[in-house]
Amino acid sequence: MRLRCVAEDILSQVEEMAEREGVSCQGLLVGSAARNTWLAGDHDLDIFLAVPEEGDLGEALRLARKLAPIHQEKYAEHAYIRTIIDGFEVDLVPCYALKDASRIKSAVDRTPFHSRYVAERIQGLEDQVLLLKQFMKGVGVYGSELRVGGFSGYLVELLVLNYRSFLGTLEAADLWCPGQIIDLESHSLVTHQDPLIVVDPVDPKRNVAAALTLDKMFRFVAAARCFLRSPGEEFFFPPKRSAFSGEDLRSKIMRRGTSLMLVEFPAPDVVEDVLFPQLRKAEESVRTLMMRNGFSVMRSEVAWHDGSKVNDLPPRANGLARMLFELDVWQLPRIQKHFGPPLWEREHLSRFLESHPEPISGPYIEDGRAVVEISRKYTTARELLMEEMGRISLGKHLAAQVRNGYNIYVGEEILSLEDKPLRAFLSEFLEARGVIC
Amino acid sequence: MRLRCVAEDILSQVEEMAEREGVSCQGLLVGSAARNTWLAGDHDLDIFLAVPEEGDLGEALRLARKLAPIHQEKYAEHAYIRTIIDGFEVDLVPCYALKDASRIKSAVDRTPFHSRYVAERIQGLEDQVLLLKQFMKGVGVYGSELRVGGFSGYLVELLVLNYRSFLGTLEAADLWCPGQIIDLESHSLVTHQDPLIVVDPVDPKRNVAAALTLDKMFRFVAAARCFLRSPGEEFFFPPKRSAFSGEDLRSKIMRRGTSLMLVEFPAPDVVEDVLFPQLRKAEESVRTLMMRNGFSVMRSEVAWHDGSKVNDLPPRANGLARMLFELDVWQLPRIQKHFGPPLWEREHLSRFLESHPEPISGPYIEDGRAVVEISRKYTTARELLMEEMGRISLGKHLAAQVRNGYNIYVGEEILSLEDKPLRAFLSEFLEARGVIC
Repeated sequence: MRLRCVAEDILSQVEEMAEREGVSCQGLLVGSAARNTWLAGDHDLDIFLAVPEEGDLGEALRLARKLAPIHQEKYAEHAYIRTIIDGFEVDLVPCYALKDASRIKSAVDRTPFHSRYVAERIQGLEDQVLLLKQFMKGVGVYGSELRVGGFSGYLVELLVLNYRSFLGTLEAADLWCPGQIIDLESHSLVTHQDPLIVVDPVDPKRNVAAALTLDKMFRFVAAARCFLRSPGEEFFFPPKRSAFSGEDLRSKIMRRGTSLMLVEFPAPDVVEDVLFPQLRKAEESVRTLMMRNGFSVMRSEVAWHDGSKVNDLPPRANGLARMLFELDVWQLPRIQKHFGPPLWEREHLSRFLESHPEPISGPYIEDGRAVVEISRKYTTARELLMEEMGRISLGKHLAAQVRNGYNIYVGEEILSLEDKPLRAFLSEFLEARGVIC
Repeated sequence: MRLRCVAEDILSQVEEMAEREGVSCQGLLVGSAARNTWLAGDHDLDIFLAVPEEGDLGEALRLARKLAPIHQEKYAEHAYIRTIIDGFEVDLVPCYALKDASRIKSAVDRTPFHSRYVAERIQGLEDQVLLLKQFMKGVGVYGSELRVGGFSGYLVELLVLNYRSFLGTLEAADLWCPGQIIDLESHSLVTHQDPLIVVDPVDPKRNVAAALTLDKMFRFVAAARCFLRSPGEEFFFPPKRSAFSGEDLRSKIMRRGTSLMLVEFPAPDVVEDVLFPQLRKAEESVRTLMMRNGFSVMRSEVAWHDGSKVNDLPPRANGLARMLFELDVWQLPRIQKHFGPPLWEREHLSRFLESHPEPISGPYIEDGRAVVEISRKYTTARELLMEEMGRISLGKHLAAQVRNGYNIYVGEEILSLEDKPLRAFLSEFLEARGVIC
């Protein structure tokens, strides 16, 4: 296996260079490649550069830079290096070499312990892991990135270690309820509120499935159920759905009779795991804004579209962040009912009446409370968003981008934007079809 | 006082006729005329024909028919006679003469006890009663008919007996909260859930204010508060508001931007106190129907319009029953979200998925539940009401009328109906202004 060969080569280069530079640093192959559970499309190679507990991560980082002169510097909890070696994407990650997983200083320090735990137990089950990974990939629940909110590679390995096979895992999942606990070493220490709790065998306080969302958990459950009833290759390799044509999109949107709104702005220069929580937060803020102003959002979704694929001049370096909202109605009447205090709260009532000296209708009494009908500030969702988008709570990086400007497209206008990722995004949004039994 | 004189005359006629016919029956003047608290516009004269406890109400009724050959026969808990004598409207009501109010057989038997209780205590306070009645009339809370849901004449008298004056009552009311209890004889026996509880001095289990609605109670409180701050004749005799012109109505409706719907059908031949609860029930049923189908009703109101005043040929004997609804929106998108069971309820889920084999979108998972987007049965409030009006829960008499047909007018169409009571109804509905401080 060529990947394994490349890995060995890098490890020996690390050893040589550490010796030459007089740095105390050991190379460790971790991740799926280390234990023959690597699936094409997984991140290729994770090589950790471990310095002693009292050592300096900076030295390991300098070593990595020398090892791969052409590289990107990345940053998660601390800095690491991403490079291409022999056609594989390789991350070189500084970490501390620890004896005890409970003494870790950052998340990456835990990885070698995971790697060791699985490597010592997975022999003979590698194919089951690969099957389960490919199944999850096919049904769209593989990956613990925040964008996906699915199952990590390590989590898949633990599931197979626990249920002993691909099919065993599916059969068990069919019966899962929210709050399902899997505790391989029977040493759970902490109660978690997560939908699935898989106690980390090397760090019992930690839930390995913490990033898994309720909906992705049950997307897997639903797919497992369907597969058990009627197995087929298409679960692993679903036929690629082609996006709807512009004409199809138009007729589907017309048929729904809803109002679509697209908010779009240049994506900030941050990694996906930083961008997505901010996009979700922005999505939630817009939903709240809409609701507070009387508009109800049926569904919404966010996306990050690569700048090079977007039909947009000049191309934006970091692509476009997009939020799509589907509304029941886009226009509301001019008046709105405004409820005041109960009639027997005399002080509140006085203040309420003073602040509405000339309502359109009222004041009148409904269920014992004073009510006035006043003019709505925004009668269309578009006006509302145009005016208020800059004032709602967004993540730090998004807020900065939004201050520099954003576009809002409503209904037909969205269809005039003809880039491919948008068409795929819209198609998937409108279809919204999962494998559910 | 001519009214009193007419009353005395009728009472002696009753006496004579009872003697002539050999019927044991005594005439009693009850109501406000009996105790000098009669206000113009109050029902004029209530004369009770009391038969002994073991006697026959039918004999009293026959006596009443002879006494007033030209009359209407009315029916509340049992039959009575309404006639015009010397220009006054007179009700001749058979009842039992009882020694003890706790042994009453129907509500009317209680009236003589009320009359006696008040008559024995009200001397010197009659003007205070008249002031309070006229004030309540001016601010629209006088009358315990179900249409009004306000204060009965007896209730007003008890308030004055309790608070000793018109102003005293207003000052006390300013501080009322829901659940306020007034117990003149300090012998409350039963807990009531009503907004105002005035223990009946002659029947301690009964709440004299049972018919008073929360909103009418606090309409009085609000008006009392305003009057105490800035007294004026207009509280007693509010300037008659003229209805808006057709042009004004049109522009006010346009300005609101809402959707008005009017449902109209011939009123059944029943008294107001039978009709109104049914109209309120129908109103509530329509509101529920709207809500369940995704339409939100901002406000609604019902009315009974005299057939002779309605521009409608042929005139309907009992007039028209009308229900007015104001909606946020009159049209909704074709699709609607339909939530199914959680993914872990496997049996329910199977049935749900089977019953929606081809949704427009989905099934997908939201908050752990299966969701499909399906076609809405009714996309406009008009269609909905046209189809479903005959199927909703209505009172007995209304249901019969609705089966015979009803009209629905939407938006502009309502303005094309030009009868006067409708214009007044619409004007009041749109204005919806109360005296609130």
